[in-house]
Parts: sequence; structure tokens; C-alpha cells
Amino acid sequence: MFGAIDMKQAVGNLRAKAQQLFDALRSGSLDHELGGVSRDSYGRGEQFAHDLVAHHAASIGLEVRHDDARNSFMVWAGSDPDLPAVVIGSHLDSVAGGGNFDGAAGVIAGLIAVEALQGIGFRPQCDVIVMAIRAEESAWFHVPYVGSRAALGRLPAGALVARRVDTGRTLEDHVRAAGGDPEALRAGKASLTTECVKFFFEVHIEQAPTLANSQYPIGIGTAIPGNFRFPGARVIGEYGHVGLPRRFRNDAALAGAEFAVALEQVWEQWDRAGRQMAVTIGEFHTNNARHAMTKVPGEFAFSLDVRAYDERDLEELFARVLQIVSEIESRRGVKFELGRRTNSEVATADAAVMLQLEDCARRLAIPAMRLASPASHDAATFFAAGIPFAMLFVRNPNGSHHSEEAMDTGDFLLATAVLAEWLANGV
Amino acid sequence: MFGAIDMKQAVGNLRAKAQQLFDALRSGSLDHELGGVSRDSYGRGEQFAHDLVAHHAASIGLEVRHDDARNSFMVWAGSDPDLPAVVIGSHLDSVAGGGNFDGAAGVIAGLIAVEALQGIGFRPQCDVIVMAIRAEESAWFHVPYVGSRAALGRLPAGALVARRVDTGRTLEDHVRAAGGDPEALRAGKASLTTECVKFFFEVHIEQAPTLANSQYPIGIGTAIPGNFRFPGARVIGEYGHVGLPRRFRNDAALAGAEFAVALEQVWEQWDRAGRQMAVTIGEFHTNNARHAMTKVPGEFAFSLDVRAYDERDLEELFARVLQIVSEIESRRGVKFELGRRTNSEVATADAAVMLQLEDCARRLAIPAMRLASPASHDAATFFAAGIPFAMLFVRNPNGSHHSEEAMDTGDFLLATAVLAEWLANGV
Repeated sequence: MFGAIDMKQAVGNLRAKAQQLFDALRSGSLDHELGGVSRDSYGRGEQFAHDLVAHHAASIGLEVRHDDARNSFMVWAGSDPDLPAVVIGSHLDSVAGGGNFDGAAGVIAGLIAVEALQGIGFRPQCDVIVMAIRAEESAWFHVPYVGSRAALGRLPAGALVARRVDTGRTLEDHVRAAGGDPEALRAGKASLTTECVKFFFEVHIEQAPTLANSQYPIGIGTAIPGNFRFPGARVIGEYGHVGLPRRFRNDAALAGAEFAVALEQVWEQWDRAGRQMAVTIGEFHTNNARHAMTKVPGEFAFSLDVRAYDERDLEELFARVLQIVSEIESRRGVKFELGRRTNSEVATADAAVMLQLEDCARRLAIPAMRLASPASHDAATFFAAGIPFAMLFVRNPNGSHHSEEAMDTGDFLLATAVLAEWLANGV
Repeated sequence: MFGAIDMKQAVGNLRAKAQQLFDALRSGSLDHELGGVSRDSYGRGEQFAHDLVAHHAASIGLEVRHDDARNSFMVWAGSDPDLPAVVIGSHLDSVAGGGNFDGAAGVIAGLIAVEALQGIGFRPQCDVIVMAIRAEESAWFHVPYVGSRAALGRLPAGALVARRVDTGRTLEDHVRAAGGDPEALRAGKASLTTECVKFFFEVHIEQAPTLANSQYPIGIGTAIPGNFRFPGARVIGEYGHVGLPRRFRNDAALAGAEFAVALEQVWEQWDRAGRQMAVTIGEFHTNNARHAMTKVPGEFAFSLDVRAYDERDLEELFARVLQIVSEIESRRGVKFELGRRTNSEVATADAAVMLQLEDCARRLAIPAMRLASPASHDAATFFAAGIPFAMLFVRNPNGSHHSEEAMDTGDFLLATAVLAEWLANGV
């Protein structure tokens, strides 16, 4: 319907606007202590970002709504109100001292794509909803995908009593303070259903340098890994004096060290066998209230995130974790307490839409490669709820979750152009 | 001069007094939060202990003095004021949430031995000085042997600006607040010299269960290991997103884990070869202000204490540490910053006095075995200053530096009887 050159141009014309939005977002959520930005889930930083994008959406004629979790929906009404909507979105929160683009790029891509389509006189048949999602990062509440799961009526009730790591206040309190309704979330009331949403589209920066190394500006997402996580695992050994001979020690930190090294060896083996997985032990520490240079550590704490692209792989990996734990326990006289476990299912992108996106990129002469996401995304929640999804990744040479995360606005506009091209041909 | 049965009896008669002293010490320094006792170096807990023993010493007629480091000297004047003194002592501070006997037993043994000797009418020729030493535990300032090194004029000036881990105040401030004179310490002014002290005697609980396992109530110390320590070592990697593939990661925590496991393997090899050493990594942690479950750790901190009984062994071990570090650095793209290093020399007990102590034990029918101390002690500082020393260890099945440390008063009185018997025959 619309020519290829036009769409690249239509989006490219909005470069300054996109840049302004990113700049405003950054300067309003700078973390002067840690560097980078801190958009704390259900806190000041995230709220600022929601207000900013809602204000911009209103300025281009979108209707702004919120649900009980205070997700923001910026609605471009289609010509046929009876058709199910396409939702374009991502999250606006960040880790503490994180990067400006992780999450936010997906929301701004939606807004810029809509404005570009408006600019060329396109009018969608179905509603196109740009969704700014709450609290995707599990760093704050140790609960992932709060906003998307709440919107889909899939937030476990237990999640509402999780406490934010810095404020110590419950998720419930934070939701209420942001103007949401935790009781509605507890009752599983959904703001998005499979009846009213036909597709979810998420643009996101890549969180590894694969595109950068392969010299592709964008990637077409194939799958999101599933994972199992233990946010607060512990090893219990016995505190002992520095003079204790080795045979008398039950060193909890060495048990933790051995566990980490053993799991990394599993990953190495899988890598060599061409099997995809990842292990991250992000928190890994003795107890700073009790540890000392001259004390054998009697306790150790760690977090664990294990991910793969196949449910059977996850089962196999969990069995390996238990095997390693039990072997270390019996040899070292320590006890692992893995604690609360969370799971995310493997999610695969819609095969037909992947082909359409490849067509769009080809028409726009934009180099694109298929890419399995190493990270988790809100899109996986939509998949789990029965809503098909697509993802586009934007090149980022520096990784994410820290201040050096980087995205070229040109690359961002290429991904947005593919999104707009797809919308123009399908909604 | 005095019969064997008499000395065991003379000391045994003071059981209730010894018990009272230990009980008063414990109840005045209980740590209700951590359990056990906290006698913080140059803090309330240590000061309380100094006041308590000084009060007791005065009650048995000893003259109480202090030096510029506020070590306490409880002097039983000998008949010949020109003779060099025998010093019996240990430290009164503890780690946070430590045991009641680690250190304190050596001071109370001196006081009980003196009172027992007084009780049987013994009068020493030389002064017998019971010394309560300040700040032996490096847990507070990350500086070991503050009191004994200060007394001997051997405290490095740099130590005075070390900050206490909890208060953040410098050692200098703490010394001054306790009534001492940091300027005198800075100038290296000694309160004890090789001219005025002929011997140092330290009774200490064993900090491993070797005596308990071998069913000996006491041990005669043969040597104190030397060590090298890195109180504040770090690994610098790169923070990264949980989605980062393995080949792009520079995981500082995994580097630390691998370092710990590799050093433990060295220890295992030495154990198998019958070579004595120990490695303790007491602090071992990601940065709790920046770590997160979904972030590859970009920095890691640890402490290191490596000990052995031979200076060449220490050199060999240090070379192994550097070799392991360099191998991990090049493979993982991380950087180790070992930071400030401290050293303690190997110290060997006086061979002639070891034989005398074996004679004393035999005369008193007290089973005693020779025992190399796995832990460091103030006695090593006296040895380094040219003053010969002896040590007696008291059985302790539970290890030390925690609240479950245990000592049978009967075992303590046996060690004290051997000490008194030796004093009665030599001073």
C-alpha cells in the first residue's frame, strides 16, 4: 500500500523527535550516584517515564488509558472498533544504574511508528495500542514481568506481598501509591485478553553484542528463553576460626564457589555441543554483618538464573543443579537452601510474522538477521497467555543493565521503519 | 621448690574465682544480635574487659599500669627490681559475635596463676607482669596485633590511619578516645623492650578441635604460622545483562570463585604431601549496592589469609597465588587488584622452655601434647621483637570466632597449673 522508500523516509523524518524523547527520558532519570539511569519499578523514575510518554502520546492525538497495574495504554483508534487490537510495547523501568534504551526503546518505537504512519495518511483498521509496561525488571521486587502479567490477569497473588529491595515496601503498597488497584490484580482481573488483542509487538535493544559483531543493525526475534530462578538461595555451613584445619571446615563460601564453577562448566559443555543455555549468578556473597578476614564463612547467599530455549533443556538443567548441590553438600558438610523458585516458559515468535518482517526489511533494504533473544522479555508473558508475538532487536555493542549500554538512533529508526512497514501492511 | 600436687591444688582452689571472672566478662560483653560476645577493639566491649581485669588485679595486690596504646599491665613486683620481667598475656578483644575465651583465657590464666602462687607463699625474683593486650583481632581495623606491636614499638605508622569497619573512625581516633597517645605510637615509643622483658607466655584456647579429637586437655605450642594477607582484594570485570552469551562475559564473581577453588586445591595437594598451610577467604562478595539477579557481576571483593610454618613455604604460596591470578586474568578478561598486603613472620616457641613445660606437665600428671598453632597470636609479635615465648593451648571442641566456642574450666585450670608450676620453678 505504501512504498518502501516512503516508509524509511517517513520514519527518518522523526529522528529529532525520537532523539528528544530519549534525551528527555535520560535527563529525567539520571542516577548521579551509580551512573546511567534508575527508573525504579513503581517508583519516581518509572513514573516520570510513564508521564513523559503519555504526554507525548496525547500530543499526537492518542487516547491515554491506565489499568489496575498502572500500565499506560496509548490508543490509536482503528476504523473498525470491533477488531482485536495490535499492541506495541515494552517496559519503562530500568535496573538501578541501568541504560536508557532497555525497555524504553520499544515504547518510543511504537510512538514514532504511529506518528510516521499518521504522517503518510495511514489509518489502521484495528486499534493500534502503544503500551508502556510496568515493572519488568526483577531487580526491584525480585518478581519479573509484574506489569505484563498483571495486564493479562496472570500475576500470582503471592507477588503482591513481595517487598522492594530498597524501600522494603510491598508491591501492593507501591501499586496502590501509583494509583493502581492491588485488589483487582489479586482477583486476576485482566485489562488485556486474547479476545481484544490479536498480536503483541516488542522492539528492544539487543542485550549482547551479537548484532554488532555480525554487523547487522537489527535482528528479527525467533524465541525468548524460558528460565528457572532462585532469587534468594543460601548455603549454610559453619563459621570457624582462620586456624581451623581443612578437615574441620564447613566453608559455605567455598561451597558456593564450587557450585558456580561447576555450573559454568555445564554451560561450557553445552556451548561445545551447540546447545543453547545461560547461567547467571548475579548476587554471590558472604554475610557482611558476620564475615571477617579471619573467619571461615559459615553462610553464603546467591541468586541463580538458568535459561534455555526448550522446556526439556530446562528440566535437564534443573536436574544438574540438584545433582551438583547434593554432591557438594555431602562432600563439604554444608546445606543448600535454594528457597523460592520462579519459572518462565520458553516463548517462540510467530513464524508467519517473522517471514513478513523479513519481507518488510528486504523491501526497505535494511539488513536483518534472525536472532534468538538471550534475555527474557514481556513478550513471553503474552505468548504464555495465548497471544502471538514478534520482536525486533536493535544493535547495541555494549550490553545492557549498565550505563555504557548504547544504541545508534539510526539503527533504532531502521527497526521502527520495519515495524511501521509491517503495521501499514497488516492492520 | 613447690610440690606437684600442691600446685594443681593451689590452682584448683581458685576454680570459683576463675569461673566468676569468665562469667562477668561474658555477661558484660554479650552480643544480643549476633549471639556470643562482642569486645570491639578500642570500643566499649574491649574497654569493659580491661576495666574488669584491672579491678580484679588490684584486688589481689597487683599494680596496674597502662602504656600509650592503653594495653593494661598488672604487675606483681619481684624481689629484684633489676631483673627483666616475665610477661604473661593475651588479648581481651574478640571478633563480633565471638567466643568468651579467645584471648581472655590467657589474661585470666595469668591472674589465677599469680594468685595461686601468692596463696602458697611464693615470691618471684623478677617482676611477673600480666598483660591485657589491645586489638589483636584484625576484624575491626583490618590491622592485626595493634596492642602488642604498639607495646614493642613495632606498629607501622600507616596502621594509625586504618578505619574501624563499623565506626569508620581511624585507629588513631580510637586510641586517643581510649586515653592513649597515638603520637607516641607514631614515634615508635616502646613500653616493652628486650632489656626489660626476658620472656613472654601466652595461654590460649585452641581454635581447632585437634586436642579434643586427640583427647588431650592441653597442648604445648611449638610454632605460630607466618602469613600473608590481602584484607581488601578485588576483581574487576564488567557488568553485563543476564542475556549476555558466555563468550562476551567478564564475570568478576566467577573469577573470584575460580580463584578460591584453585587455592583450595593447592591446600589439598599440600595436605596430601604432608605440608602444613592454610588458606582462608573470609570475605567473598559481590557489591550489594550494584549486584542483581539479572546482572553479570562486574566487580567482586574478597579477603585472603594464607599461612604456613616456613618462610620459604610462604614465598612458594605467594608465587602460586600470583600464578593463579594471572591465569584467570588472561582467560577471563578480568583484573585482580590484590591491594594492601600485610605479613607476619613464622614464630617458633623457645625449645628449652617447651621441654620445661613438658616436665611441669609430667610432674603434675597432666596429659599434654605438642601442637603447632594453626592460628596467629600476639606471641608472634614478641618473637619478631627478639623476645622468646611459650604457648599453652586449652582444649576447645568447637573452634573459635563464633558463639559456640567452648572451654571446660577444668582444662583451663590444668593449663594454669602448668603455667604456675613453670613460674614457681623459673622466675
